[in-house]
Amino acid sequence: MKIEKIEHIGIAVKSITNAMRFYGDILNLGLSEIVDVPNRKLRIAFIELSGTKLELLESMGEGSVIDRFIQKKGEGIHHICFEVEDFDKVVSELKDKKVEFVDEPRIGAEGKKIVFLQPKNAFGVLIELKEK
Amino acid sequence: MKIEKIEHIGIAVKSITNAMRFYGDILNLGLSEIVDVPNRKLRIAFIELSGTKLELLESMGEGSVIDRFIQKKGEGIHHICFEVEDFDKVVSELKDKKVEFVDEPRIGAEGKKIVFLQPKNAFGVLIELKEK
Repeated sequence: MKIEKIEHIGIAVKSITNAMRFYGDILNLGLSEIVDVPNRKLRIAFIELSGTKLELLESMGEGSVIDRFIQKKGEGIHHICFEVEDFDKVVSELKDKKVEFVDEPRIGAEGKKIVFLQPKNAFGVLIELKEK
Repeated sequence: MKIEKIEHIGIAVKSITNAMRFYGDILNLGLSEIVDVPNRKLRIAFIELSGTKLELLESMGEGSVIDRFIQKKGEGIHHICFEVEDFDKVVSELKDKKVEFVDEPRIGAEGKKIVFLQPKNAFGVLIELKEK
């Protein structure tokens, strides 16, 4: 298994518009793309940087993963996403190593295969794997 | 102000050795460097990746920032570090914009100027700035 880079860092925010008062107005960073994912009640905004992006995650309704996260922990860093070359093989290798997953692999907001690992595997860090 | 990349993601762990059972044995990532910072009661281990690194932070004594973080929130993602080209100018610009800092700029584990912003500025995210 070869992980080469962190593709993005996911940040749970109550409002992408409000968050951009910091990331945009103060840090001078720009949004590259906003994607609505109605079936997961999420709006996702990407801030392009060299290499690893920021992904701002806003809940669009009660009960979404981001709504639940913010209720429990407040706004803040939500997960780290590693890009992997050979997605299916990596998932299979991790299953062989008894790593537990939050859910089954699915197609993410950007049309690539993604899957989330249980944070207890990674000492409290929620890790997403994304197909390159 | 121009921020070009995320330099690293800081992760609070109880034990770097234990954490490497996941990052090393399972994800096949390697440590590039371990730095002890006795005056801050910290041991810091870096995992080199393309672009953005992982920084594992272990407390070496009671009362360190990582000890207090883990007591309060458990192990997990601690901060995001942005690399900035013109460090002093950026800090001065942020002060003009009423951004609040956790402490004054100082020299970090890798010999570069660093400073931490109050998480409330960034909607719950602890942000470090590091001189390029």
